[in-house]
Amino acid sequence: MLEQILEQGRAVTDAALERLLPPAGQYPTSIHRAMRHSVFAGGKRLRPTLCLEAARLIAAGTNSVMSAAAPAGSTGGTPRSGIEPDGLPRGIDELGAALEMIHTYSLIHDDLPALDNDDLRRGRPTCHVLFGEATAILAGDALQTYAYDVLSRLACGPEQRVRIIFEVAHATGTVNGMIGGQVVDLESEGVAPDAGTLEYIHRSKTGALITASLVTGSIYAGAAREQVERVREFGQAVGFAFQIADDVLDVTQSSQQLGKTAGKDRDSAKATYPALFGIDESMRKARELVESACQALDEFGAGARTLKELARFLVERKN
Amino acid sequence: MLEQILEQGRAVTDAALERLLPPAGQYPTSIHRAMRHSVFAGGKRLRPTLCLEAARLIAAGTNSVMSAAAPAGSTGGTPRSGIEPDGLPRGIDELGAALEMIHTYSLIHDDLPALDNDDLRRGRPTCHVLFGEATAILAGDALQTYAYDVLSRLACGPEQRVRIIFEVAHATGTVNGMIGGQVVDLESEGVAPDAGTLEYIHRSKTGALITASLVTGSIYAGAAREQVERVREFGQAVGFAFQIADDVLDVTQSSQQLGKTAGKDRDSAKATYPALFGIDESMRKARELVESACQALDEFGAGARTLKELARFLVERKN
Repeated sequence: MLEQILEQGRAVTDAALERLLPPAGQYPTSIHRAMRHSVFAGGKRLRPTLCLEAARLIAAGTNSVMSAAAPAGSTGGTPRSGIEPDGLPRGIDELGAALEMIHTYSLIHDDLPALDNDDLRRGRPTCHVLFGEATAILAGDALQTYAYDVLSRLACGPEQRVRIIFEVAHATGTVNGMIGGQVVDLESEGVAPDAGTLEYIHRSKTGALITASLVTGSIYAGAAREQVERVREFGQAVGFAFQIADDVLDVTQSSQQLGKTAGKDRDSAKATYPALFGIDESMRKARELVESACQALDEFGAGARTLKELARFLVERKN
Repeated sequence: MLEQILEQGRAVTDAALERLLPPAGQYPTSIHRAMRHSVFAGGKRLRPTLCLEAARLIAAGTNSVMSAAAPAGSTGGTPRSGIEPDGLPRGIDELGAALEMIHTYSLIHDDLPALDNDDLRRGRPTCHVLFGEATAILAGDALQTYAYDVLSRLACGPEQRVRIIFEVAHATGTVNGMIGGQVVDLESEGVAPDAGTLEYIHRSKTGALITASLVTGSIYAGAAREQVERVREFGQAVGFAFQIADDVLDVTQSSQQLGKTAGKDRDSAKATYPALFGIDESMRKARELVESACQALDEFGAGARTLKELARFLVERKN
């Protein structure tokens, strides 16, 4: 079941990305080849998959205490474009693709020599290694730009689109967002980590975009405000847990298993959960977060089972 | 008159940027200091000023053959927020500020060592010189992100906002947009320039965002589709002329007059108009473009006088 969900999320997102990104032969070709190299470098499409499942949960709208209340505080009703037989709102794949473009832009820039200086990502050479630093900087820029281009044209109503754009921009900004987390992460290298700073980094750098993926999926599917806030609560706990698990994997797995350089956090004296609390306590914390996340979805009833399974998978995964 | 317009455009935009950007003391402070350093580094705010004047033209809607037809093909009517006594639609300053954030992000990234490697911009040290490469890359990223955050919350209707976001994203993307132009510009260094490539660079790298500034200003003010297309025509010719004039200034002015390193195009063997056609022929071409641009606005009558004056100023300016 979970494997099917992950596989569908990956396939749907890959197809949308293939369709939406300019072809590699489009002038000027170097930038489009660089963008496609990084976008199609074996990503698991976890953020789009979370987005799809949040949308499916809202679109189902059955067996749920909350769905009865939906029309009152609705954020736009079901999307104009309707629901597919598989339960996904039509066109949601393009929202997932835009989220993956944002995620990929952040990876390209994080990998640059001036930042994390990584040559390897998902087992392949990083963008700047293959295409040079200038093209890598611009390819990251362009993926961010292109994400908003796609978001502005989503198949849901304009009111939903501007809310989605706001959520994505806010989640990737400097105040409690992705860039803010990255800045503090860089500044914390070689400094004794404290738990408060570490939580800020994890919640901002990784958690915020994971949360936004779930939240925007629910907005796209026409969730009521109250439903969106339950999904947000779920996302915040899952996003934090996801990064703690990531820290643990960096210590416990080999480079081959991870597809990137293992032990990198320790070597660069990065603030991590295992460094501060040890592996066992870190995993206990991650699992506790996931269980509290799942509670936030209890009001949705049985329909929330897939999202809960996904949350547990995200902390128990091996790469 | 023109001086007043330029001064008002600058003052209005500076005030909006001051209000909208996170304060320098906001955690994490390094990124906010870097963003503010580059945003408040003495820019002339030409793009916001063009945006404001396009909006004022549409908002006036008098003495115009076209305004009579506006309601039929209207893109949303006058903005919900109303018109200020000075003729500007309320809240347009935030659109101008967002455009300036986009422009500033592009300057920060262009100046990086991997790209143009400029230490000086508007007479001040560039972002990476003061804050380091990592912070400069992230400050550019964040200004782009923050622009979309602001655009998603503009005071006009959601339908207008998504159209504005589309125009900005498209104008700054890789296909006939700012990043595409920058890529071809970088790849043309040291290569014998040809006129077709040069026109692509100028129209994409500079022209597209100038055009979008005018187009989005008109959309914000509720222009009819047909009016938007006249403004677009004007913008495309003005944007191209602006960059030709910029090439000429690089040859004819000193570094002190320009506030940046003069003669840089020649030293890096960049494709420029003067290199290809000489200074006189380049200026003739720029002036010809401006006159054809002004013709596109003839249908708006006397109200278009300010925009036409601005266009002429952009090719005759001395820095």
